[in-house]
Amino acid sequence: MTGLDVGRRAVLAASAGLAAMAATGPTNARAQAADDRVRRGSSSDPITVAMLVHPKMVMQDLVGPMTVLKLLGCHIDMVWKNKAPVMTDLGIAVTPTQSFDECARDLDVLMVPGGIHGTIECMNDPETLDFLADRGTRAAWVTSVCTGGLTVAAAGLFQGFDATTHWAVSDLLPLMGARHVDQRVVSDRNRMSCGGVTAGIDLALALAIRLKGEEAAKRVQLIMEYSPVPPIQSGTPAEAGPDLVDGVKNLRRETDSRARAAAEVAAKRLASIHDARRVGN
Amino acid sequence: MTGLDVGRRAVLAASAGLAAMAATGPTNARAQAADDRVRRGSSSDPITVAMLVHPKMVMQDLVGPMTVLKLLGCHIDMVWKNKAPVMTDLGIAVTPTQSFDECARDLDVLMVPGGIHGTIECMNDPETLDFLADRGTRAAWVTSVCTGGLTVAAAGLFQGFDATTHWAVSDLLPLMGARHVDQRVVSDRNRMSCGGVTAGIDLALALAIRLKGEEAAKRVQLIMEYSPVPPIQSGTPAEAGPDLVDGVKNLRRETDSRARAAAEVAAKRLASIHDARRVGN
Repeated sequence: MTGLDVGRRAVLAASAGLAAMAATGPTNARAQAADDRVRRGSSSDPITVAMLVHPKMVMQDLVGPMTVLKLLGCHIDMVWKNKAPVMTDLGIAVTPTQSFDECARDLDVLMVPGGIHGTIECMNDPETLDFLADRGTRAAWVTSVCTGGLTVAAAGLFQGFDATTHWAVSDLLPLMGARHVDQRVVSDRNRMSCGGVTAGIDLALALAIRLKGEEAAKRVQLIMEYSPVPPIQSGTPAEAGPDLVDGVKNLRRETDSRARAAAEVAAKRLASIHDARRVGN
Repeated sequence: MTGLDVGRRAVLAASAGLAAMAATGPTNARAQAADDRVRRGSSSDPITVAMLVHPKMVMQDLVGPMTVLKLLGCHIDMVWKNKAPVMTDLGIAVTPTQSFDECARDLDVLMVPGGIHGTIECMNDPETLDFLADRGTRAAWVTSVCTGGLTVAAAGLFQGFDATTHWAVSDLLPLMGARHVDQRVVSDRNRMSCGGVTAGIDLALALAIRLKGEEAAKRVQLIMEYSPVPPIQSGTPAEAGPDLVDGVKNLRRETDSRARAAAEVAAKRLASIHDARRVGN
């Protein structure tokens, strides 16, 4: 069995899960049970969160939401193929706390941060897709930050869902079966995704409300003094204007082109899985 | 010579530098030269930034501004007493890239992140104060994030300056000679400080404008998609209301009490240095 086979099998399983979900409601039975447990909020077990860490990731994508969820009292693991440190954009290495094999089977939250260079490598990596498709099918919440949304989409987990990602690559989501919605945080059934880098803080607060209620989320926001006052207004393409957008797109041209190629490969894989299911697999 | 003597000597030197600064304008001669170099923006040398890292620091205090300054093209070192990894609030260890001894003598930016438990230990640690007072006297910019403002104040570097820090401990700044201004980012001559945790992103963008101009800062903001839309409004004590504020203060009671004790010790030290200078040292 090749690595690609493994990836296809896992994504096939994820697709089956999604089909079941579509038939039974917003989440499948296990996800519903986990979601109920989270909503009750009375369990003595902390909410379990697995955050994917990977080489060339963007540290802020991880640290913003992780700070929110840690202050909320969640148990958070950073998961990767193995526990060797992965290097981030800031030159700060992150040591995973769990390998894929060690990660809990049934998670309350699966979260996938981004970092376009690392994302591109994840988008067609069978071992990563296998892990995400498996845990994502059962998790109460499947969430992504920045280009992590492309990784989640490549794993088949945004097929038929509203989603978003970093503005520069959001046009790639529909290739992989997601409907791109141009909002900072997009929530659809048990999926939540957001725009680039700093949007992870807004996503995590929105998720915190769903996990523990508004009062708990507000307490976290106060501790983090999150009442932003940007000194300039250039955080979206509309705010920045065409000249700045073109400038950034030019800087990213080669990278975004590689992202598109990766999305096209992922799209073909997802289509072939869909076809395989139609003929009776 | 005891460790305390070392700390006193360094702070004494810093005070002398501040006196010279008061006499000659917003910055002393070296800081002015560095500031001019930064403002020209034409130098092929990148802007040099040293960020203090320390045990029990808050990772977001470091990562938010570091992401901004890295995208701006700055050369950033993470400095501490030695290069053994320091543990942060998230359970992610950070390995310093330079020891205090290795850090450049003349910096464009000295930045001190926070994390109250680590801050309290820094506030009366002679080796840390020695380093900050020395580099801070010559740096073009002395900046702090969150409770890092208390560390900077304890090193004597906010004496006679407007400053701020995390809302829960901002009342301690005046004990150490700073005038507390209740704004998210406070700029006074070549000092810049900000509120808690997430305010570091706003500070770094304000600093980016001063270092490289508004166009460059806007480009960074667009790449980071920093157009925040918090789903709830509870990021300041005024927004959160008295019940939430009291709740957080209760959680922090013992810690904030230790911070006050540390500020009182620092205040006595700064006063004794002031007295020593008055009698002719």
